[in-house]
Amino acid sequence: MYPVITISREFGSGGHSIGEAVAKELNIPLYDSQIVDQVAAESGFSKDVICEDGEYTSPSQAWYSSRMAYCANFPSPQDRIFDMQCDVILKFAHQGPCVIVGRCADYILEKANIPALHVFIHADIEYRKARVLERYGDNNVPIEKRLRKKDKGRKAYYRYYTDREWGDSANYHLNLDSGFLGEMVCVDIITSVARRMDK
Amino acid sequence: MYPVITISREFGSGGHSIGEAVAKELNIPLYDSQIVDQVAAESGFSKDVICEDGEYTSPSQAWYSSRMAYCANFPSPQDRIFDMQCDVILKFAHQGPCVIVGRCADYILEKANIPALHVFIHADIEYRKARVLERYGDNNVPIEKRLRKKDKGRKAYYRYYTDREWGDSANYHLNLDSGFLGEMVCVDIITSVARRMDK
Repeated sequence: MYPVITISREFGSGGHSIGEAVAKELNIPLYDSQIVDQVAAESGFSKDVICEDGEYTSPSQAWYSSRMAYCANFPSPQDRIFDMQCDVILKFAHQGPCVIVGRCADYILEKANIPALHVFIHADIEYRKARVLERYGDNNVPIEKRLRKKDKGRKAYYRYYTDREWGDSANYHLNLDSGFLGEMVCVDIITSVARRMDK
Repeated sequence: MYPVITISREFGSGGHSIGEAVAKELNIPLYDSQIVDQVAAESGFSKDVICEDGEYTSPSQAWYSSRMAYCANFPSPQDRIFDMQCDVILKFAHQGPCVIVGRCADYILEKANIPALHVFIHADIEYRKARVLERYGDNNVPIEKRLRKKDKGRKAYYRYYTDREWGDSANYHLNLDSGFLGEMVCVDIITSVARRMDK
């Protein structure tokens, strides 16, 4: 049986597309926006709020979150979304082999002792700038600032909920530079490792 | 033509063996202790000193090294070994495709604008403990302490000479967990990427 595969990714590195291609190649489900849909269906939160609070945070938000929990003795909206995401991710992983993109899935599965293949996709800033501009177009915010902001938010979110460093080799089995290797090679590496684990 | 391949590795992760197998598979030279031999041949330093000062440092050693250079206006022995290693590594890389293990080769080639495939091999502490005990046997120092000390020395050395973080995804194209994947799979991934770059 193929393993559950988690894919964490820098913004603009093509991690979602790689996950999609891996899932298609192995004929297993991909969970990315589906996690948002599920959390939205089970809670009163809008998808926009879940997208933002379910993967990004800032130090002030993290501070506010922890203070709120301490003072009022109940979880902040961000903490509640994290808990719900955990439940949804664990449910998906228990259903069988799949690809789960983002949302600290590597940490969540590890803590639950669910064996999985953990992948981190990254690329240099120039590759990511070009990719984001091509895919999502330009807006009022300079492209480099957009990238840095997204990465900082994901990094802070990961650190806050896992006490680990986002992108640190120690947390993943494969860290792949998609800008250097190309998306196709990344897909081939991940699928070939998954196929060997199937033996 | 195959690329030059640099392999950085945590102590006990099997990085040297993986490099050896990659070099054999691609039929290209491997440079590891050969760098030490070359530096020894071109300098008055003993191989033991080069092995130790050419890959490990401690904060106090780094401080002493920089103070010495500042006060006496001449490079410390460690700085001289680093400079000589740079020359040897660049010479090897200019000769053609090869595998170079350790010694900040990724940084040295990048600064010299020499295209290369940069790999980092790591593994969890239990895998590395077992591997080191099996390969090098036990001694008076507890195994975990030996591993931590070696890694800390390499990390500090890399940071001192490159201003970058050892093992940080951003510095490598492939970070592979040899404990999880197995040495054979690591060798296959690296050789398959090198072969694609040959096309």
